[in-house]
Amino acid sequence: MVNVIMHGCNGKMGRNIAALIADDPEITLAAGVDAFDEGKNPFPVFKDIRDCDTEADVIIDFSAAPAVDNLLTYCEEKKVPCVLCTTGLSEEQLQRVEEVSKKVAILKSANMSLGINMLLKLLKEAAKTLVPAGYDIEIVEKHHNLKKDAPSGTALALGDTINEEFDNEFDYVFDRSTRREVRPKKEIGFASVRGGTIVGDHDVIFAGTDEVITFSHSAYSKAVFAKGAVQAAKYLKGKPAGLYNMSNVIDNK
Amino acid sequence: MVNVIMHGCNGKMGRNIAALIADDPEITLAAGVDAFDEGKNPFPVFKDIRDCDTEADVIIDFSAAPAVDNLLTYCEEKKVPCVLCTTGLSEEQLQRVEEVSKKVAILKSANMSLGINMLLKLLKEAAKTLVPAGYDIEIVEKHHNLKKDAPSGTALALGDTINEEFDNEFDYVFDRSTRREVRPKKEIGFASVRGGTIVGDHDVIFAGTDEVITFSHSAYSKAVFAKGAVQAAKYLKGKPAGLYNMSNVIDNK
Amino acid sequence: MVNVIMHGCNGKMGRNIAALIADDPEITLAAGVDAFDEGKNPFPVFKDIRDCDTEADVIIDFSAAPAVDNLLTYCEEKKVPCVLCTTGLSEEQLQRVEEVSKKVAILKSANMSLGINMLLKLLKEAAKTLVPAGYDIEIVEKHHNLKKDAPSGTALALGDTINEEFDNEFDYVFDRSTRREVRPKKEIGFASVRGGTIVGDHDVIFAGTDEVITFSHSAYSKAVFAKGAVQAAKYLKGKPAGLYNMSNVIDNK
Amino acid sequence: MVNVIMHGCNGKMGRNIAALIADDPEITLAAGVDAFDEGKNPFPVFKDIRDCDTEADVIIDFSAAPAVDNLLTYCEEKKVPCVLCTTGLSEEQLQRVEEVSKKVAILKSANMSLGINMLLKLLKEAAKTLVPAGYDIEIVEKHHNLKKDAPSGTALALGDTINEEFDNEFDYVFDRSTRREVRPKKEIGFASVRGGTIVGDHDVIFAGTDEVITFSHSAYSKAVFAKGAVQAAKYLKGKPAGLYNMSNVIDNK
Repeated sequence: MVNVIMHGCNGKMGRNIAALIADDPEITLAAGVDAFDEGKNPFPVFKDIRDCDTEADVIIDFSAAPAVDNLLTYCEEKKVPCVLCTTGLSEEQLQRVEEVSKKVAILKSANMSLGINMLLKLLKEAAKTLVPAGYDIEIVEKHHNLKKDAPSGTALALGDTINEEFDNEFDYVFDRSTRREVRPKKEIGFASVRGGTIVGDHDVIFAGTDEVITFSHSAYSKAVFAKGAVQAAKYLKGKPAGLYNMSNVIDNK
Repeated sequence: MVNVIMHGCNGKMGRNIAALIADDPEITLAAGVDAFDEGKNPFPVFKDIRDCDTEADVIIDFSAAPAVDNLLTYCEEKKVPCVLCTTGLSEEQLQRVEEVSKKVAILKSANMSLGINMLLKLLKEAAKTLVPAGYDIEIVEKHHNLKKDAPSGTALALGDTINEEFDNEFDYVFDRSTRREVRPKKEIGFASVRGGTIVGDHDVIFAGTDEVITFSHSAYSKAVFAKGAVQAAKYLKGKPAGLYNMSNVIDNK
Repeated sequence: MVNVIMHGCNGKMGRNIAALIADDPEITLAAGVDAFDEGKNPFPVFKDIRDCDTEADVIIDFSAAPAVDNLLTYCEEKKVPCVLCTTGLSEEQLQRVEEVSKKVAILKSANMSLGINMLLKLLKEAAKTLVPAGYDIEIVEKHHNLKKDAPSGTALALGDTINEEFDNEFDYVFDRSTRREVRPKKEIGFASVRGGTIVGDHDVIFAGTDEVITFSHSAYSKAVFAKGAVQAAKYLKGKPAGLYNMSNVIDNK
Repeated sequence: MVNVIMHGCNGKMGRNIAALIADDPEITLAAGVDAFDEGKNPFPVFKDIRDCDTEADVIIDFSAAPAVDNLLTYCEEKKVPCVLCTTGLSEEQLQRVEEVSKKVAILKSANMSLGINMLLKLLKEAAKTLVPAGYDIEIVEKHHNLKKDAPSGTALALGDTINEEFDNEFDYVFDRSTRREVRPKKEIGFASVRGGTIVGDHDVIFAGTDEVITFSHSAYSKAVFAKGAVQAAKYLKGKPAGLYNMSNVIDNK
């Protein structure tokens, strides 16, 4: 049994994770932390992690950047491992994550879905074979019409994982409409589609002579990120200090 | 039986069309015209359309812009209908096409494939229902790595056919990476993928709330354009003067 | 303003529709009908439609087949139009629907999503052009791993709408593994994929020489069916007696 | 420089390979073997491999099963490595291949395309992570309307490569229309689409909770198989005796 504190328990992801844990006999939600609470949760909720006296094996965090400072101090002092899912951390906070991870296990990933993290791993392999054979790489991502940034962070992470295999020699191209030239070889093209309520689709395309290979991932709801966080929590219980990510969770299977 | 003169008979498309006609009992290639000829064709070849004295029901043209002037004069004088597939005509030439079409049947389309032309027609219908219902429109096109322009002319034609239904009130967006904002409603997004030897894929995406409808067209070889030209020639035989396009060929079915 | 009675208000679809109506200023949920009720709805709920004395412009029904008999009697007597979404009606009930529709407006469709109904309409047009041109038709549908029947009712409806244009001369093929022969022309192939929690994907494929055209529909949640029912209710208010379906709603746009 | 004998040089694949080799400075076609020859090839052609006295580093074979017996004897005696692409070999012939491979290098694969062979390799990895996480596996393949068998040999090879990782505990399902039941977990579903001139599309789908991962391969012409054979020939030159397949070629990159 894994005892979990949900840090940010009343946010969209926090509630999603609480619901998943309620249905899973291997894991329990011992307490929640959230600045706003209406007393409707079936577990004790604290306004701040510093007020929390519940014993736990792991903390799952889906809160907001300002709340992460106290969280890290808590993990460091109490030696509780943490699945850290809040994004938009400052440079100082990222440095602090590294420091704290020397004393306690911290898991941090750009995207918590099992599927995307497995793709990140397989794409390295695929690229090592297909790029020397002359295949061109293109990434197409699709998201809902409220998403403001483009390309998505996950699309860039997919590109980066390939680029790192080749000493970052690929240029990234976001717009082909402003030039008139044959496609350069050392290039990864990114295309972004925005419409409706699309949760998140990513295609990584390897296009060769008379042959196209595509790795596609579609998320149908935010539950896939909740599921990944729960898997990560189970994995992290009892792990020694260190900085982990979702690929460790996958390799453990 | 339809007697055809192939104008530009030794180019890639001319040879493709000649091969199709050879296998089709309803149509004959009576003569070809090409500045360069090695005497290997099983039909007489003339250097210039003005030298050609062969009687024909229709001319199919896949030549080059400079050769089109003499072609139009020939069609006008001899009253031979013409399937005009050469692209990149000047403004003057386009005007001349309109003039000549008052005296003889001329068929001209941005894309000769039956499939694309059917999509152009259906998209108007789809957009009339889906746009008022709040669906966002996005177009993704994929072509080989030697194609220099982006987005493709066909992608733009697909956007235009929708836009015309709405008094051209949609803006076209080619790059989302340079801004950070929620997607405006009155916008059609275009994304271009370049890689390998992809002949031509076009997706028109209507994305709504929890629902996505996609119209896709994939061409596997240039033969689809040859096939469309042959169908157009059969259709055009005996037609009265006027400016036709592939949608007339489709409606005739 | 459209006043609606939700027949089957505590089922999954009923609650979905109630939520949509609550957010829509043009329509109000005046009352609900459900055999089981815990008194948590913000509108009066009756155990049986016969007990309901609320005035309404339209009834939306997502109940169960046995409850439809009283519903039809009610609509006939009170002259309230009805969007009838319950499936699995008996032959007798279907006959009764036709009878009642002579006295009051009834709308009934195999699939309530706007997107699927628009495809049903466009596919007729597409098939009229592409089938005579030699294109083969194949339908692929994907649903979650709990769906017991295959192919889906919607896939069959997509096939039927095409087949009707050709005097039902196409045979339906559900399994190609048991025979070894070239594909017959007059055939529509159906392929079913089952896995995970896929809500519902449908592809209608027209495959020709070197050209493939695909019409795809993806539903991401059951909300698309709720949305269609609400649109149908708005459309049906004040309509004369008759049997309607979703294509009438679309054409009204 | 690699010197090659093309066994079956006048078949469709043989001519494809000859064309590729003509454009590749690293490899030469020293001689061909074919029962039927019109003397038009720019290399000597022998009616039977036993008549061939040309020295070669590797033989590429795309002939017919009856011709393979003499080929194997030749390879064994002359110690010439062989890329064996002919399919439909008898049990005896397959046994003979194993025997001969103890004396000379033989490379044999179900599908010669680089892309499919890379997928075969990556799918093992993907399945090891995704199957224990509860994902369902489905395979969809699309081919032209003249292909008689279904599912394709490549689709079955894709399923087999996954099944082998799990002690072949998965059942294969080719038709879901004849039963009405929830999808069993230990099952791989195969769906076959036939239409037009589709060269060969394969999708391997892993469907989980609110998440779908798809590995897709599209071949646009038979040239992809020719390309793979040429790569295999380059790889096999000078290799010690043994039975090789395309995954050895990939791993060598």
